[in-house]
Amino acid sequence: MSEDNPVYTPPFSKAEYNRRLAETKKRMADAGFDLIICQDPANMSWLTGFDGWSFYTPQVVLVHLDEEPIWFGRAQDAKAAHITTDIPPNNIIGYSEKLIHHAIGHPYDELADLIKHRGWASARIGVELDAHYYTARAHAHLVEGVPDAKVSDSEQLVNWARLVKSDAELVYMREAGAICTAAMNRAIEKVAPGVAQYEVIAEVYRAQVLGVEGAYGDYTGLCPLIQVGEGTSTPHLTWSDQPIPRETLVMLEMAGARHHYHAPLTRTLYLGSPPSEVTALTRTIIEGVDAALDMARPGVTCEAVEAVWQKVLNQAGYHKDSRVGYSVGLNYPPDWGERTASLRPGDQTVLQSGMCFHFQSG
Amino acid sequence: MSEDNPVYTPPFSKAEYNRRLAETKKRMADAGFDLIICQDPANMSWLTGFDGWSFYTPQVVLVHLDEEPIWFGRAQDAKAAHITTDIPPNNIIGYSEKLIHHAIGHPYDELADLIKHRGWASARIGVELDAHYYTARAHAHLVEGVPDAKVSDSEQLVNWARLVKSDAELVYMREAGAICTAAMNRAIEKVAPGVAQYEVIAEVYRAQVLGVEGAYGDYTGLCPLIQVGEGTSTPHLTWSDQPIPRETLVMLEMAGARHHYHAPLTRTLYLGSPPSEVTALTRTIIEGVDAALDMARPGVTCEAVEAVWQKVLNQAGYHKDSRVGYSVGLNYPPDWGERTASLRPGDQTVLQSGMCFHFQSG
Repeated sequence: MSEDNPVYTPPFSKAEYNRRLAETKKRMADAGFDLIICQDPANMSWLTGFDGWSFYTPQVVLVHLDEEPIWFGRAQDAKAAHITTDIPPNNIIGYSEKLIHHAIGHPYDELADLIKHRGWASARIGVELDAHYYTARAHAHLVEGVPDAKVSDSEQLVNWARLVKSDAELVYMREAGAICTAAMNRAIEKVAPGVAQYEVIAEVYRAQVLGVEGAYGDYTGLCPLIQVGEGTSTPHLTWSDQPIPRETLVMLEMAGARHHYHAPLTRTLYLGSPPSEVTALTRTIIEGVDAALDMARPGVTCEAVEAVWQKVLNQAGYHKDSRVGYSVGLNYPPDWGERTASLRPGDQTVLQSGMCFHFQSG
Repeated sequence: MSEDNPVYTPPFSKAEYNRRLAETKKRMADAGFDLIICQDPANMSWLTGFDGWSFYTPQVVLVHLDEEPIWFGRAQDAKAAHITTDIPPNNIIGYSEKLIHHAIGHPYDELADLIKHRGWASARIGVELDAHYYTARAHAHLVEGVPDAKVSDSEQLVNWARLVKSDAELVYMREAGAICTAAMNRAIEKVAPGVAQYEVIAEVYRAQVLGVEGAYGDYTGLCPLIQVGEGTSTPHLTWSDQPIPRETLVMLEMAGARHHYHAPLTRTLYLGSPPSEVTALTRTIIEGVDAALDMARPGVTCEAVEAVWQKVLNQAGYHKDSRVGYSVGLNYPPDWGERTASLRPGDQTVLQSGMCFHFQSG
């Protein structure tokens, strides 16, 4: 292809990835790891730029303190690693196709071989023990394959490094916000008595991908959600062909995603004349959000932000059990949360400029 | 809500779920399990009807030989279990919200307590060791929590039970096929020189959800894929804002999903005048598909179907390394494959009426 029509344009500069790798290696040294194995697709992408919907088969990025990153994955996805990353070609390694869904062997057998071949057989290795796609079986094959290594949980080491966004990342977060606003506005425009739930969602998907001027959208970590009436008590049930009634609550939750950076938003509508308790709750929620936004400044803890929100709710006789927010950013299905800081009691993470949260006030 | 406007309509009868549970318990008895723990959302749904995009937090269905199924998950998703399943209310158990992304505790600690409380502390327990969301950390907490149990891999026991579809399931598979055809036709209609890739995908998403007369669509296990020109060598790279050139290959892969049953389809277009080698390859592929479809009859093995396809390719001087197909049906992100039978050398699964495959001829 000509340079006017490139097959892929990296979302960040080489310098940005170098900064992230340096930050990660510093955290590795502090935590006592020689090598980390990252299977979380958001961590793989954040560290190297690797992209593609291939996270349903085993694939990882290895970061060793003394080496450039290594991509290890399915042979047919190695080309995507060559195209989307600056990883040296010798560090892009595809495993045997026959290991896909193999009854006895596992791709991690060849990963263990690779680790030994590189001379890291007795390394201190950090793994993402609770990452969505890091299965118990993968872990068992790894541990058996490198018996002399010290394998332990890296405890979201890279996720924590992702918490504070760079200026370059914030550009995409803001674009994601604009895409989300456009999609939410399209949904609100479409919601009306008699319209089926799926008709609203069809428009949301289209708006999420069309994005805004100069910024198309990516797929989002969760699908767009709509709940109607009694359904609003089941936060993760998806759309049906039920027509929206004349008098009802409608809950919408969706994100905009820009180069896989997410800005999610939750909004509740009332069709018809809202009962007085709904109006009162609305006022309380707005007051609570305002109080939380006032509180959310660098130097304040996550739990302090939640506390002022909860206090407003409590004073009005309400209570929200689940956390009111959590950090978001670069992500892939099945979630847009980063699994690090949450706005909830007990979370003493101190807010810094550049952190981004999904605030689920409703 | 009134009965005219139900919050949820189950996709299958109670009798269908009873049949599935009986089949599963038979397989459990044969394999020597008292209890299986299913975290795969497709298995959870197939066994009980449980639905919702909540698989990004730990949640499971337990099947014990002597008991009705048990749903165990996040408290805020328990309502969805009450609405979407016939599980007895006493068997729907929510875990403590504070265990979400907890540094030390894990929801599986309470799962282990539940298993002991039910008197199954020394049961023979099957787990889905390689299911996408069954993490190494979840497994470690389970094993530590039930030290007297015999915990081992159930080896896709429920996935294999899903392989042959019932008549009721085939209705949805056919509707999914109609939805997929509609979405693919919309894509083909939209693809043209100068149109950006994301503009095609926006239409595909809309068509996937709008579905066909009487059958709206669900989200699909993989996102719709488009690759253009050189990009066709990276099968899982997703859309960009590059305009489609005048003379080029365009690869499209997408599914239709109906009540989460998937019919996927891959198609390759050529814009402009195809070079003679593309035309020749097209003829070979059509011939290969015809040969494979002729061969695919009950009683024939998966590998025999692949062999006739590969033979046609080889005779024309081509070879396809990766499997040409795999079983599909009920599924949730990140995949639509069932992780059981594959059309590839060595797979001696015998075809039966009611099995469904994604045949990826291109």
